[in-house]
Formats: sequence, structure tokens, C-alpha cells
Amino acid sequence: VSDFKPTTTMRAAVLHGIRDLVIEERRSPSAGPGEVLVKVSSVGICGSDVHYFEHGRIGDHVVESPMVLGHEAAGLIVAVGKGVTTERIGSRVALEPGIGCRQCSYCHQGRYNLCPDMRFFATPPIDGALCEYVVVPADHAYAVPDGMSDDAAALVEPLSVAIWADRTARLGAGSSVLIAGAGAIGLLVTQVAAALGATEIIVSDVDASRLELARSFGATAVLDATKPAEGLAVDAFIDCSGAPAAVRAGLPAVRPGGTVVLVGMGGDELTLPLSLLQRREINVTGTFRYANTWPTGIALASHGLVDLDGLVTGHVDLDHTRDAIVPDPSAGQVKMVVRPGE
Amino acid sequence: VSDFKPTTTMRAAVLHGIRDLVIEERRSPSAGPGEVLVKVSSVGICGSDVHYFEHGRIGDHVVESPMVLGHEAAGLIVAVGKGVTTERIGSRVALEPGIGCRQCSYCHQGRYNLCPDMRFFATPPIDGALCEYVVVPADHAYAVPDGMSDDAAALVEPLSVAIWADRTARLGAGSSVLIAGAGAIGLLVTQVAAALGATEIIVSDVDASRLELARSFGATAVLDATKPAEGLAVDAFIDCSGAPAAVRAGLPAVRPGGTVVLVGMGGDELTLPLSLLQRREINVTGTFRYANTWPTGIALASHGLVDLDGLVTGHVDLDHTRDAIVPDPSAGQVKMVVRPGE
Amino acid sequence: VSDFKPTTTMRAAVLHGIRDLVIEERRSPSAGPGEVLVKVSSVGICGSDVHYFEHGRIGDHVVESPMVLGHEAAGLIVAVGKGVTTERIGSRVALEPGIGCRQCSYCHQGRYNLCPDMRFFATPPIDGALCEYVVVPADHAYAVPDGMSDDAAALVEPLSVAIWADRTARLGAGSSVLIAGAGAIGLLVTQVAAALGATEIIVSDVDASRLELARSFGATAVLDATKPAEGLAVDAFIDCSGAPAAVRAGLPAVRPGGTVVLVGMGGDELTLPLSLLQRREINVTGTFRYANTWPTGIALASHGLVDLDGLVTGHVDLDHTRDAIVPDPSAGQVKMVVRPGE
Amino acid sequence: VSDFKPTTTMRAAVLHGIRDLVIEERRSPSAGPGEVLVKVSSVGICGSDVHYFEHGRIGDHVVESPMVLGHEAAGLIVAVGKGVTTERIGSRVALEPGIGCRQCSYCHQGRYNLCPDMRFFATPPIDGALCEYVVVPADHAYAVPDGMSDDAAALVEPLSVAIWADRTARLGAGSSVLIAGAGAIGLLVTQVAAALGATEIIVSDVDASRLELARSFGATAVLDATKPAEGLAVDAFIDCSGAPAAVRAGLPAVRPGGTVVLVGMGGDELTLPLSLLQRREINVTGTFRYANTWPTGIALASHGLVDLDGLVTGHVDLDHTRDAIVPDPSAGQVKMVVRPGE
Repeated sequence: VSDFKPTTTMRAAVLHGIRDLVIEERRSPSAGPGEVLVKVSSVGICGSDVHYFEHGRIGDHVVESPMVLGHEAAGLIVAVGKGVTTERIGSRVALEPGIGCRQCSYCHQGRYNLCPDMRFFATPPIDGALCEYVVVPADHAYAVPDGMSDDAAALVEPLSVAIWADRTARLGAGSSVLIAGAGAIGLLVTQVAAALGATEIIVSDVDASRLELARSFGATAVLDATKPAEGLAVDAFIDCSGAPAAVRAGLPAVRPGGTVVLVGMGGDELTLPLSLLQRREINVTGTFRYANTWPTGIALASHGLVDLDGLVTGHVDLDHTRDAIVPDPSAGQVKMVVRPGE
Repeated sequence: VSDFKPTTTMRAAVLHGIRDLVIEERRSPSAGPGEVLVKVSSVGICGSDVHYFEHGRIGDHVVESPMVLGHEAAGLIVAVGKGVTTERIGSRVALEPGIGCRQCSYCHQGRYNLCPDMRFFATPPIDGALCEYVVVPADHAYAVPDGMSDDAAALVEPLSVAIWADRTARLGAGSSVLIAGAGAIGLLVTQVAAALGATEIIVSDVDASRLELARSFGATAVLDATKPAEGLAVDAFIDCSGAPAAVRAGLPAVRPGGTVVLVGMGGDELTLPLSLLQRREINVTGTFRYANTWPTGIALASHGLVDLDGLVTGHVDLDHTRDAIVPDPSAGQVKMVVRPGE
Repeated sequence: VSDFKPTTTMRAAVLHGIRDLVIEERRSPSAGPGEVLVKVSSVGICGSDVHYFEHGRIGDHVVESPMVLGHEAAGLIVAVGKGVTTERIGSRVALEPGIGCRQCSYCHQGRYNLCPDMRFFATPPIDGALCEYVVVPADHAYAVPDGMSDDAAALVEPLSVAIWADRTARLGAGSSVLIAGAGAIGLLVTQVAAALGATEIIVSDVDASRLELARSFGATAVLDATKPAEGLAVDAFIDCSGAPAAVRAGLPAVRPGGTVVLVGMGGDELTLPLSLLQRREINVTGTFRYANTWPTGIALASHGLVDLDGLVTGHVDLDHTRDAIVPDPSAGQVKMVVRPGE
Repeated sequence: VSDFKPTTTMRAAVLHGIRDLVIEERRSPSAGPGEVLVKVSSVGICGSDVHYFEHGRIGDHVVESPMVLGHEAAGLIVAVGKGVTTERIGSRVALEPGIGCRQCSYCHQGRYNLCPDMRFFATPPIDGALCEYVVVPADHAYAVPDGMSDDAAALVEPLSVAIWADRTARLGAGSSVLIAGAGAIGLLVTQVAAALGATEIIVSDVDASRLELARSFGATAVLDATKPAEGLAVDAFIDCSGAPAAVRAGLPAVRPGGTVVLVGMGGDELTLPLSLLQRREINVTGTFRYANTWPTGIALASHGLVDLDGLVTGHVDLDHTRDAIVPDPSAGQVKMVVRPGE
């Protein structure tokens, strides 16, 4: 249904095994019914890409056959499948990488992130977006306005993690929040908290330079995570570190009736002070990805309420994907972006 | 402001130390401004009364000077203080035993159970209701209808614990719930779940006779708590046992997006499976007493939607309070009631 | 993917124009990918079927070409399309008649009843279920347990309207509610309110025999709708009458902070007392169909918490559909059911 | 309990009848138990003050005996009553002017604005704050930080109206909102919407200069209220105009599932399009004052997320109160402030 002739093959960054990443030729996909074909422009590298690269698995998700990495992606719609208006061709889009079954009770109820049959970019055995072309259902490609960069469009994915965390924490005008971990997610949680009107935003980390970054992104105070936090009574504590010690340190900082949101993936077990949880009626919940966040994320980014481009600390082309995945120990990297089209 | 002349002294069940309960004469209280004087008719014995009797403390709450026990109480208003209409005299009432400061942000927001200055019957150093007369603020004495017994009026207090737990668990029509522990609280949680329209109500306990009781109070299935529960995917798990093993067994039974409510007081620490919490976005919260439950409790009990009298397994007069507190090992006691007026 | 050979044609009750209902032969449908073919057993007649029959339209929805009526349907899965397990064949099912696009923000968020591209049985130009066979997406056919009748399975549709109304009204344990109109929907709203633990359920109608019915289905009090209701202060007022006079009469009965839910379709305009709405912060909302109600409805009906069979006041076979649509003026009809298989 | 000796009399702006405002000597109040005595520094003039001045009444509230006007007030604690720590003396405070009974179900539940026994500054027969000294319960005097002006502290009251409106409208990150009326309340609703992360904030008014102000306070678009608004589909419509025409114009601009909040007081009746309300499941509610907003308001203002000083268009001393109440027709007044201490 369009004139676009993609190349029959494309290049892709494929993980074959632990630390075995190959840039190889693959057959280009084509858009089926209800789908759009997207020429990928920017792909952010996430900690989970690094984790698959280093360990070949995340928990029960094991890379058993070669898999394309990457799930933070943006691009340009170059062709559409049956049932999709050709008016969408030429649209710059941010991609939502997880596709629910649309049939189970979770999908019916709008919590599709809990769908047991979710297919998610770069979660085995589903290929990701570190390649030249991808197809997604048309409703998973969200148009972004002109003023928003390709990188920013790609980073609506980690922004979504942050929006979901802040929603789960029920942050609002005048809220106080403690955020553990000033990596990409922690910095985005910080920015979203500020955008939502939180007025006390305290960020803890072990790295002083990251704490400086946190300040520049809206933290009203910063803490050295190696020292005990005392005298706090925040509405919410959001852990983005995955460090059990950080969780243990943060929990007593939550006021009665407050909320703990566990975003960072860490050890398998979490030991909580039961009587404190009860006496203070603290609400503890984990988050898993997100649901219904792209429109919010695009609105926040395009109106300047969060700064996504400011998180990008480097670009590589597809051939140098490995350089984006293996962190340079000398550099204060936050978010590396691969540009498959360059 | 009324003709009632209470005796200047009254008898009270006073805890002087561990296992040192004395029935002694005390000065009768009188109603100050905004208060009512209540002649106590029924007082339920709670696990916390037993715990103070056996250990002299619950966590940080230590009995340092003699304290009247009892906080599940009902009675008859016999006098009123300044500012309270004399029309209230003669009213049979259920007593809400915790009095917030009415000034802090928690009281302002209707979560007065989290008030840091809460004064609560039989929590040191506040005297309880195991005596002939007590005074409470007029708004803490809720009128009960004729058809509701004194015992039932007293048991609106533990019913409130159950209402609060079921509210926190967000139970509703068609909900499924696993309830660990079929003691008084577990049986009330069961009854309230049924009253709210829950259709799958599974109760676990180690005691087969308690499980029979649970069935009679609305459980649709029962489980032997010593065996692993398998194949469950409930909307909510409410622990009323305080047994760490029960909490560990119950958590995997919760469906994605479900809720865990920790009512039973147990060990100091709780170890949870972090990745399960996250992957399923399970919400874990402790409850502490209750707020705004008396009107609901009286409505449920007086309309026959919960059966409070059916929980009462024995009565004693004030002189035999000790018999109600020290459980008879041969008997399947659920709820003992002391009748101070007899 | 199954051995079932349906007849190539079937009979259907087709509305050709105002009061022009024809029982005619039509081509039998077959199950496409993701769909199931259902042999229809019971179809309830709804006020909207009657309205299309009498007026050829409901608001902007105009019957412009012949349309099969009926949207309250149950049946037996006799064949499945590609991608649906054959294990579903032989399952008795309740059908959810509205099929959202699964792609818009409303579908994504679980409020698919607001989907602008909803396709709904017997809403022009979509055919309904008053025929021998229908196809629906597999996830719109909900299995019902053995103990639940075909009629009850069909009536999960109007029950869903009631569940949605009671959810919107936020009814719960101990709630008080005024329900205007004791037709099929009002009687279901009454039953669901009781199932949810509401303890004050007041029903008003102009017809004394309907009020008697309301009592038998759980109303705790009834009111003659032609007389002013005084002295009420209910948590919620649910209008199921569509009568502007009933709405005007009911609104002052709502306590501060209470809720008004407008279910009944009536005049185009609604005049409300603005200062009362503000001073009492009353929340007024209309409901439109329902979302995510079938599992709840089946749970309530199959556990005996609502009685659907008791609403059925008569059966006809497909040839006598007209008799079910044109009400017998002498009879106290509540819900007529057509049995296409008989 | 403090050394402060207030003068035995003070001056106050007292309304004796329609347009009959007298600056007269009154006895100074003193702090009773639990109260603080506040030397008033700034009092904002509200539309309700003007309305009492012009009409001697608002609805059922009639000025039957001389009454001090003014309810937007800030000041300095100069003395405390029994039970209040003397450490509070010297604290600059924003005053919450409505005092609930603390005993009814609304106060218990944290919706004290619905308390039937609310005593509110300058609502007959309660005197207001346009005078030199007032007493309030200690918990109604909220400390403000040094960087916040007296005027801003006083204007936390109208800011509270706006916070409550935006909370009721459930605004959040990425929300779209239409606000009718760019007076003081509309401009505050605009600012709070921006602080909460709303990204589409459309303000309508008949006055172009007010629309310019709205832009400067965060409106992303403005509309001439005399022309039909077309093509909008906002999450929420907040009427701050009280103009029936504005409400009629705004309602169709609300998307399905959206919210209408009626803040502005207007005619007695409100006519709504019933079928639109139903088909779109629009939620309509009125707001009445606010509850639990002072901490939020002070946090927003002191962190610079809303600008209260920027709304002040003039100051007068107590003797010139009338000049602040009778609007100067030539000037674009938004908020006049009386400074009783000058």
C-alpha cells in the first residue's frame, strides 16, 4: 500500500551468546495487516541490553537463539500494512516496544504490562530494534512533534518507566520523595517528579558526579547513599538502584501512609521491617515496565517539562553498537544512543 | 447535666505486671466537656490483651504502671458532659477506643489511625475498658439499634479491623481472596469479604476445627496451612496469622496486580520475593487498626450481613476476667467476652 | 479447525423498518481468525430492542438497512476460527456484545466502552444475536459453569449494566442508595447493591407491583415515585428510570459528597440545582454500557449473589420474537427471553 | 502564657448592611485553649466579600448583624492559649479560615469542608479577618517560610480553592484542561494546572487583557469566550466564571471519560445535555471550598511553582478597605490586599 521499497536485507546488532554481539545482515521485515514499517533512527541502550550482553539472561529470560538487542527506539514510518492509512507514512514516531495479546483480562483492563503473553522487543525470543527496520502494530508507533529529536523520541521508553513509577508512587503537587539511584531511570524519575509538582525531591547515590546531575535535573537535595539518611519523612520512596542496602536505608524515611516503589532490579529477596510497615501502613509495590505512558511522555518531553536530550552522553552508529553497550570506565555515561541510519 | 449519680468508685481489671492481673477498686471517671460517661456492658478479649498479660509489652509499648486492660467495649450512656445533648443518655453504644489529636495532618485527612498522638484504650499508659465505667468523647460512642446485642456492639471493634483489612485489599463483587489464619480476625475478614460480594474466599489454618468455623462463616474453600497452596491466583491475600511461614506461602498465590494485606502481627522482619513483587506489580501493605469503620460495622452487623454473636465462645463477669484471658487449652475459643455489669 | 458443519443458512429476526420485524433466512456466519461460532440459546429482549422496533432509531443511531435485533445473548461454541484452541468447542458461553477497536487510547486504558469505533450487536449497522448463529472474538465468549442457565448467561449483559452503575456509584459495605425505576435494570442494580453490602437500598417507582418485586430482590424500603421523597440522605442515587421528574426528585436525597449515576436514557436535557451540587460537592455522571464486567457478573450469578432467572417473565421461540418485543399490556413483564434453538 | 499585651481594642472593617461598611473599634480577641492570637498582616479581598458588601447576602447566608469581612488572611502569632507551645509565638502564618466541628463523619473522614457545623470567617454570623487581631485554633495557623511574603501567605486561601479544583479534576502530567474565567481563581487554577504537569491549558474569558494575564501565568492557549470553542477534546473543564453560557459552551469540549468541575458560583440552575453526559460518561461535580490544601499551597508557593504576589494589583490600609472592595472600573484589578497593620 505504499511506494516504499525497502532493501531486502538490513543490518542488525545480534546477540549470539555472552559478550558475543555480531553486526550481521538479516532479512528486512515487512508490514503485515495493522502494522507499520519503521526505519529506525535512534535506539537508546538500556541496562537490560547490557545485562543480556554480559550474562545472556535476565532471570528466567534466557537468550537461547540469536536475538537483536534494543527496545528504546524511534524512527520514521516508511510503509504501512493493510488497514493502516497511508497518511501515516512519513511520520516520525516513538515506539512502544511491548505488545500485549489484547485478549486477556489484563489487556482488557488497561494493565497490559501484566499480560502473560506480552511480546517485548529484545526479551527472548523476540527481536529488538537495534537494526535498520522494525515493524510494530500501528498503534504502537506514536507520532512526535517536529521540535522533538529522534533521540528524545527513543527515550520516551525509559521516560515511561519513570512516569509509571511516579504514578505508582502517587506523586503530586507538594509531594516529597526520596529517590535512590541517579542513573538514567533515577534521573528521569527525578524530572517527572518535578514536572508533577513535587517540591521536596531528594536523590541518593554513591557517586558524587551523578548527584550533581540529579541537582541539574530537579533534585532539591542530594544524599550520599553510603551514609544513613536521618530525619526524613517523605511521602514516597522510589528505589531505582536495585541495591538491597538502599532499599533498607530508604524504607524508614517514609512517613506513615506513604509509599515505596521498587523499580530497580536487584537481589531475589527483599527483607522488610514488618512492624514498621504495619504501624505506618506503608504501601510497598514493585513496578514492571508501564502502561499507557507514551502520550504522557511525549507531552512532557515536547513541552519541555522533562529534558531527554540532556541525558544522552554519546552516539555511535550501528557498527559501533558494542562501544555503546560496554561502558567506558573513564566516562560518566548516562545514556548511549545508537543511530542505525548513520 | 444529668441526674445520674455514679458510684464514686468502681471495679476494674488492672494489669500490674506480667501475669499479675488484679480486680481492684478505682475512682469512677466523670464526663468532661464533650464527653459521655458509659456504663460498660460487654468487653471482648483481644489477643493484645493476652499479649500484655503474658509479656507486659507489645513491641515498644511497655506497661510501666498499672493499666486497665480491654478495648473492645460497649455500654450504656449514663451521663454526658458539657456541650453534649442529654438526649444521648440512655443510648446503647459501641465504643471506638482510639482517640486522635484532631489537629495533625493525619487527623485532618481522615487517617486518624496514623495520628502520632493517638490515645488508645489499654495501650500504655492509657487505661482500657475492663471496668464498670469509662468516658469517651461523645463522637466515639456510636448508637446501636435495638436488635443488636451488647456483645455485638463490643465486637464492632475487631469487626473494624476486618473492614479496614478488606477495604485495604480493595475487595468487591466477584473478588477472590486468600485469608491466612482463622482466628477471630480471620473469621471476621471472611465474613466481611462475603458481605462485600467476594465469591472465592479461601481460608487457611493449621487447625481443622477453625477451618470448619471458617466454612460456616462464608469461606468457599479451606486449606491446611501446613501444606503448600498451589494453583491459586487470587486478587488479594490477607494475612491474619502473623506467621512468617503463612506469609511466605501466601504471596505466590496472588495474581499479577493483586494485593497483600498484612494484618497479623508476627516477627520483626518479613522477607519477600522481590522479583515476583516486581514482575507481578503486587501491592503489599500493613494495616494498623482502622479509621471510619464504626458506621459501616454497625450497618453490617445490624442488617445481618455479619454475625458477631456467633463468634462469642464464652462469657465471664469482671471478677473472672483472668479466665477469659488465659485460654482454656481444651476449648476451641474464638472470642471471650467479659460482662462488667454482672 | 473443527468437524462442525453448520447449516449454510439460518433464521434471524430482522428489523426492516418501524414495527416491521421479519423472521427470515440469512447466510450463516463462520468463525474467522480469533473468532468463535456460537449456536445461540437464549436472547433477552432489552428496552433498546423495543425502541428500535417502535421508532427505527435511538438518538443518532438510525436503522437504515435491515438489522438483526438482540444483544443479550448466550449460546454454545460449535466451531472456532484460526488461532483459537478447539478445546473451546462445546463450551456454554455468555456473550459480550460490544467489540472495541483494541487500538485507541480508550481500549488501551481499559475503558473500551468509550471506544469511538465500537461495534455493538444490534446498534446500526451491526447485526445482533436474535438468530441461530453468531460469531464473536473468542475473548468475548465467556464460559459459564454448569449450574448457570442459558437464560442467566444471556442476562449477564443487563447485569453488566447494573454492575457498572453500582461501581460508578462506588457502592460498598454499609452504603445507602436510592434507585429510581424498578424495571429490569433497576432490579439488577438493586440486587448488585445488596451483593456489594449496601445496607440501605431504597427503590422508587410508580408501579406498586414493581416495588413488590424490588423488595423481593433486596430493596430495604420502597417509595411511591409520584410523592416527594423526604428526609433521605443517601450515599448514592442511581436513576434507572430516565424520567426527568425522578432525577429532579432524587438529587436532593443525596448527602454531601455523594454520587448521582444516570443510567436511564431520557430527555435530551437535564436541569440540575447548581448551588446544591456545589455546596454538597455532589458527583454526577452518566454511564454508557460497561467495561470488564463479565467475569464479575458470572461470579455473582453462579454463586447465587444475584438471581437472573427470577427476572425472566416469559419465553418465546424465534418465530414469536415479536410477541416478546411488543409488551402484553395486561402482564407485569420484566424480562422476556427468546430461545432461537427451540 | 506569653508576655504579649495586645491593645484591649482594635480596629475592624465591619459590614452593617448593604454598602454600609464601617471601620470601627472592637474589643480585641484573646487566645482560648488550643488557640493562637494572630496580628493580621495581609487580607485579600475576595468576590464573596464584594458580594456581601453589595447584596448583604450570598444565597441562604444573610448578614443579619454587623460582621467583620475578610477570609484570606495571614499574620504573626503574638500570643498562644493554653495547651499551645509558646515556641509558636513570632511565627508568620497563613490562616485556614474554616473550622469544622471535628466530630461529624465529614470531619472524621477528612472532608471537613462538608461539615454541617463549619464556622467560616466572614460567613454570617462569624466575623472575618479584616481587623487587627484574630484568633484561630493553633492547627489553622500554618507557618510560612521566610521567603514567602505576607500577601502570598494570605493568598494561600484562594490558591486552596484552585488546588481543590485541580485535584477534583484529577489533573496530572500531560493533562489537557479548559478553564473558563480568568479572574483570580481562574488564574490560580491555571498556575496549579501547570505546576501539576498539565501540558494543554486553554483559558477562555471575555476580557482580552485577562487572557494576556492567563498566558503569563501558564496558559498554553486562550479563547474568546464569546465565540464557540470548537474541536477541543480536553481531559477536564473547570468553570471559574459562574456564567451559565460558559458552562454550556465548555461541556462539549470534554472528551469521553473526562471531568467537569464547577467552581464559579452562578445561577441556581444548570442545564446539561443528558445524552452527551451519558454517552461520554462525563463526570460533573461542584466544589465547595477545600480540604487539606494549606501544606500543598505553601509548598507550591514557597518553591516558586505558583506566583501569588504577581496576582496582587493593589494595597490599601484598613481605613481604605472600601476602596479595595469597590472595584475601580478603569483598572484591571485581579486581587486587592488590605494591610491592617499599616
